[in-house]
Amino acid sequence: MSRTNRCIVVAHRPRYGVPTRDMFKMQFVAVSEPRDGQVLVRTTLLAIDPYLYGRVTGISQHSDPLPLGSVMEGTTVGRVEVSNHPKFMAGDLVHGAWGWQDYHVTDGNDLTVVDPELARPSYELSALGLSGFAGYIAVNELLQVKPGETLAFGAALGGVGQIAGQIGKLRGARVVGISGSADKCRYAEEQLGFDVCLNRKASDFSERLEAEFSKSGVDCIVMAVGPGGLQAAMPHFRHYARIAVCGLIGSYSSASAKGGKDQDWGTLVQEVSRRRLRMFGVVAKDMRGTPLDDQFRRDMKQWMQEGKIKPVEHFVEGLENAPDTMRGVFEGKNFGKAIVKISD
Amino acid sequence: MSRTNRCIVVAHRPRYGVPTRDMFKMQFVAVSEPRDGQVLVRTTLLAIDPYLYGRVTGISQHSDPLPLGSVMEGTTVGRVEVSNHPKFMAGDLVHGAWGWQDYHVTDGNDLTVVDPELARPSYELSALGLSGFAGYIAVNELLQVKPGETLAFGAALGGVGQIAGQIGKLRGARVVGISGSADKCRYAEEQLGFDVCLNRKASDFSERLEAEFSKSGVDCIVMAVGPGGLQAAMPHFRHYARIAVCGLIGSYSSASAKGGKDQDWGTLVQEVSRRRLRMFGVVAKDMRGTPLDDQFRRDMKQWMQEGKIKPVEHFVEGLENAPDTMRGVFEGKNFGKAIVKISD
Repeated sequence: MSRTNRCIVVAHRPRYGVPTRDMFKMQFVAVSEPRDGQVLVRTTLLAIDPYLYGRVTGISQHSDPLPLGSVMEGTTVGRVEVSNHPKFMAGDLVHGAWGWQDYHVTDGNDLTVVDPELARPSYELSALGLSGFAGYIAVNELLQVKPGETLAFGAALGGVGQIAGQIGKLRGARVVGISGSADKCRYAEEQLGFDVCLNRKASDFSERLEAEFSKSGVDCIVMAVGPGGLQAAMPHFRHYARIAVCGLIGSYSSASAKGGKDQDWGTLVQEVSRRRLRMFGVVAKDMRGTPLDDQFRRDMKQWMQEGKIKPVEHFVEGLENAPDTMRGVFEGKNFGKAIVKISD
Repeated sequence: MSRTNRCIVVAHRPRYGVPTRDMFKMQFVAVSEPRDGQVLVRTTLLAIDPYLYGRVTGISQHSDPLPLGSVMEGTTVGRVEVSNHPKFMAGDLVHGAWGWQDYHVTDGNDLTVVDPELARPSYELSALGLSGFAGYIAVNELLQVKPGETLAFGAALGGVGQIAGQIGKLRGARVVGISGSADKCRYAEEQLGFDVCLNRKASDFSERLEAEFSKSGVDCIVMAVGPGGLQAAMPHFRHYARIAVCGLIGSYSSASAKGGKDQDWGTLVQEVSRRRLRMFGVVAKDMRGTPLDDQFRRDMKQWMQEGKIKPVEHFVEGLENAPDTMRGVFEGKNFGKAIVKISD
């Protein structure tokens, strides 16, 4: 049986702006037959993580940018169609990071069987994926948010925010999220139990944010999107407040990204000093395979099983829609962690 | 015997720029006789700490700015002239923070007897003072600099830098200081054992700094002056590099201090994320009287007695020269921790 692999490759490297469709190009190639010891996987799900944009632009990469022409990176779930490998059987659900394509032929070293105890395989990409891990590391490990403290963050229903906020609640914090629509805010407050979620598009947003932050000051903040929230929170930071910066998207609209030179780091560094701030940059990927990762999986699985963490997932159908979905993430169109359904 | 107290008070609150003489005014007032339970102290030494400028401008204060007309703040050493207090005797050397004046009448609660085992009483203001404590907290506590790591910092012979660098050497780090003259650099290398000290006024400074930082990357940086060094170090930071920001002087030449609005925090926050940086703001004063302070005094005393830490002090004669000495600190004119000798 001959199969065709649709793969989306990097075609153009923009320097700034939101991700556009012309960054990518779809290619069609024949799928090679898996040899002895190999596995053929058909992609079922693909996570759209904002940090991946930085892997294209090369501005905010955590490592070297992806070469033009290479398959776009992304974490994936798939089903084994053919296995010539003792560890896998046809029909097995596996997850890994083989990127934006229909098929993947591999020796299996980059595959992990999806935990059969999960209510949905997609949880491997959302709550248990890199964004969930980032939220966990931020709140549970770096910030160590304490009962009664105020934890603030943007993109409240995004992959990182939804987990950060729910763990914040578990730890007894007052949780203040910011999101881009009234619907998302209602969901965050009613379904996820956030104390407050403010709609940044509401006309009274600034006043309400100011009022919330004034109530008790800000102890902790998780930044997974732009630095906007930091300036709003700054006057309200308590001494020794903590800031976690998780795989921040390239500041694609900043002066420096546009080639400008208006870098004013002095005022931020000064605030760090006078307010005795602690700032932690974190890249969840670094921690994969460490004891912290094991602890994370145990905790998160248990929390999900007990109904204490409810993953919020936003599904889009079709590999061909991955580029627009990525753009949508930057425009705040996703209602939860964005996942593309590629096949059943 | 009637005594006159010369005291230097805050007369003018500049918004930015280096400290000027017209910020201060000298006043002459009669010294009241110490009553029962009181002590009269005559100031012998006054430390000039850069962070005090922020207490005047109110831009970078760690607490409320000093009111106009109040005696300028500063840590001090003095000799008890009259004691009506059981704990003190005439002739005792004491230290405290009674500011820029000749005399101080007190109930003694703000006085501590100078440790008689110190080779010089001035060490209470330098190595054991707030700047030494800041250097200790930064390198020993927050950065926890490890053998073989590269530790960089500016104002290499300043109150914080000289201690940070020497503790860095004790901990086995490669120490790269930056200073404002060839003399200071030579001293730092030959007398304090810094691996390299670069003169930022030398014509080949940028090239040499680049070369030094390129050698092995930068693991740790102590910032006690402006944020200039941060931009130079940034491209060379290793992942998970640590930054200690100690009582940073108000960014008196920054756009925001001048009323501008060009705050570009995005690029710095982005660097924190992509390089996984850890940034710690610290104000040594907060830690006075804590177990960390006790540990610091024990460690520092021992290191000085063993000759492992050599305090570098820059003495200026006369209370009336305190304002110019403060200005000099901002212009890098001091060769070591600046201390004003007020009386014998």
